[in-house]
Amino acid sequence: MQVWKEYLEENKDRFLEELVDLLKIPSISADSAHKDDMLAAAKFVENSLTKAGCDTVEVCDTPGHPIVYGEKIIDASLPTILIYGHYDVQPADPLELWDSPPFEPVIKDGKIYARGACDDKGQVYMHVKALEVLTKTDTLQCNVKFMIEGEEEVGSPNLGPWINANKEKLSCDVVLVSDTSMISMEHPSIETGLRGLAYLQVEVTGPNRDLHSGVYGGGVGNPINILCKMIASLQDEDNRITIPAFYDKVVDLTDQEREELNKAPFDLEEYQKELGIEEIRGEKGYTTLERTGVRPTLDVNGIWGGYTGAPKSVKVTVKPDHGGEPVVTPTDSVAYQAAAKAIVETFGKSPIPTRGGGSIPIVALFEEALNVKTVLLGFGLDSDNIHSPNEKFDLFNYYKGIETLPHFHKYFKEMEDK
Amino acid sequence: MQVWKEYLEENKDRFLEELVDLLKIPSISADSAHKDDMLAAAKFVENSLTKAGCDTVEVCDTPGHPIVYGEKIIDASLPTILIYGHYDVQPADPLELWDSPPFEPVIKDGKIYARGACDDKGQVYMHVKALEVLTKTDTLQCNVKFMIEGEEEVGSPNLGPWINANKEKLSCDVVLVSDTSMISMEHPSIETGLRGLAYLQVEVTGPNRDLHSGVYGGGVGNPINILCKMIASLQDEDNRITIPAFYDKVVDLTDQEREELNKAPFDLEEYQKELGIEEIRGEKGYTTLERTGVRPTLDVNGIWGGYTGAPKSVKVTVKPDHGGEPVVTPTDSVAYQAAAKAIVETFGKSPIPTRGGGSIPIVALFEEALNVKTVLLGFGLDSDNIHSPNEKFDLFNYYKGIETLPHFHKYFKEMEDK
Repeated sequence: MQVWKEYLEENKDRFLEELVDLLKIPSISADSAHKDDMLAAAKFVENSLTKAGCDTVEVCDTPGHPIVYGEKIIDASLPTILIYGHYDVQPADPLELWDSPPFEPVIKDGKIYARGACDDKGQVYMHVKALEVLTKTDTLQCNVKFMIEGEEEVGSPNLGPWINANKEKLSCDVVLVSDTSMISMEHPSIETGLRGLAYLQVEVTGPNRDLHSGVYGGGVGNPINILCKMIASLQDEDNRITIPAFYDKVVDLTDQEREELNKAPFDLEEYQKELGIEEIRGEKGYTTLERTGVRPTLDVNGIWGGYTGAPKSVKVTVKPDHGGEPVVTPTDSVAYQAAAKAIVETFGKSPIPTRGGGSIPIVALFEEALNVKTVLLGFGLDSDNIHSPNEKFDLFNYYKGIETLPHFHKYFKEMEDK
Repeated sequence: MQVWKEYLEENKDRFLEELVDLLKIPSISADSAHKDDMLAAAKFVENSLTKAGCDTVEVCDTPGHPIVYGEKIIDASLPTILIYGHYDVQPADPLELWDSPPFEPVIKDGKIYARGACDDKGQVYMHVKALEVLTKTDTLQCNVKFMIEGEEEVGSPNLGPWINANKEKLSCDVVLVSDTSMISMEHPSIETGLRGLAYLQVEVTGPNRDLHSGVYGGGVGNPINILCKMIASLQDEDNRITIPAFYDKVVDLTDQEREELNKAPFDLEEYQKELGIEEIRGEKGYTTLERTGVRPTLDVNGIWGGYTGAPKSVKVTVKPDHGGEPVVTPTDSVAYQAAAKAIVETFGKSPIPTRGGGSIPIVALFEEALNVKTVLLGFGLDSDNIHSPNEKFDLFNYYKGIETLPHFHKYFKEMEDK
């Protein structure tokens, strides 16, 4: 649609200036000192949605930071797209590692540097501006709803209850989330699955005090040695996990899905070099993309212990920590196909369906509460330093997102009609 | 010898007062702020040795804290006993856990509480007072040499060179060390072996940075999982160490030695209860006393690691830390037999030869440099809290030591003459 391109071209600078203004607000949800900044950011999003063409916009209170809800309903019988994102950002420390202050956005080499540039203010704002493009060019063909929360970086504690209390308001045909990344601009991709997470803390204790290994060693079991034995026993020679029933609910890929997944560019030598390792290691019978994208893993993320000793008499305590359900978004759905077509339109090639290991716990929530599937249409890059110093977002990606999203609206409407 | 008993009885209070004065000096070798206190303690030991009857006493400079050397030579043809001990003490923190200040000795329930009360000022001073008993009653029958250092608690860095530079001066027929403990006053015992120590730090590293387990887990080896596998593989089902040649130089006990060793009182139920464990665990085919006293052990004393990942491509670095040679003091030597007889004399029963897991690295040094065996005739108790708050020494043990040592001199002379 030439009209979209033209509108985008004409308003390019303003689209960037507005994003800069949003990025200047230090909306760090984890830090209670930024409560006012959270409200300011919510207000900013509210105004932006109104200006972009929403009929109704509200800042909804929660026991934590507010959720901004906005909608533009053309006709109840048309397909509805619910856009989810978040206006809160990660803390910015260590500040000394930033080349420029995190809340004073700097544009350099075609990239915008600021906390939240990619995660997720930049990507949220693509949707706001895409809506503006559609409404101002009078080409909006789907109903649109926005749900932009302020607690994603602190585990979305109030989102679940709010969604469950507003199911009707949120009813939709697809949830569209831009909070992920693509392989590269040369290899556009869509995330189609997340492995989920079960984080546990295991504590092994022995005798009632620290024992001198010279005095007791060899006579009394040592909890560290025993913990190591326990951990070692969890994986076999083929790096398969030995816990009974561990793989029972893992959905196997079809041959076709495996083929598709392995189309993603992967250079083993480059991968090893980049990580500084001489050899990869993983479950027998699977490629690295399958091992990291689809197959479960069992990793010890931290271990500590000192001066103790203990045998069968060791006590083992398992404390559940946080977790996240795994999720698979179908590639044969109308929404996925619409996203793929939109990408072909603006990138000139089909997206590669990828699978990711990171978890976005709310995706499973949407599925359960709203009974709709999600499309993870992210425009970030792995090199965007999200959660790290010098977070950035390429302007090319920002504009590419604004350019692509209207096509998604169009294809989704067309295909839903069929 | 009735005359010793009488002299001890008459001077009992003074013997305690003098020890109290020595304990008041905060001679913490590890803390450079106590350099003057170290000199004061060395001076105190020097004066004590002179008053107790030594002919020559000198405070010998070293690159660290001085060594106090003293001797009383009656006749070069007589047997010579070299007494080793140390006047430095461990740091006293955490101070808040002491019931009374560590350098303000308190006598309570027949025990003297102070840092160094048992380790090793109290035990050193038994020898000083035993010499006084012998010289004042004109019954000294052996030449006596004292070598009291000030760096035992910091690893005796300057003792080896000093001994090697003074071999002739230190020539002797036995080294007598009172820096260990007995099972109890009802079960007198003599330490006859130390397991030694090899302390290593093993570092396993993988990729060049912390990896997100969601993104890389399952595709790249995790150094923690691999370290656990390595540690687990070091012991087999029977808790035998699997490292090739690990047991090659371990001296097996004779049947008779095993029998002797296992005479030490050991109540499994009490042992488990005291440690708060339900079951012991150790190498198949050995008793707990053998496992902890004679057999080598392989214990992880501390472990830590976090957020990493790595396979065959993990790098393993082994850094040697401190160590100590194992040592076995013969039970069939003249010196051991003399010590055993002295104990029969004052305790009314034969000592049990025990084996310990703690290491006293200098014992192997004496053997190598001076070519003499050591007798570890300690009068402490395991409950003396050495290196801990509320260190104490039972007055009963202090006096028992002063009473027993002259008998050792006597029997050593008699048996060497044969």
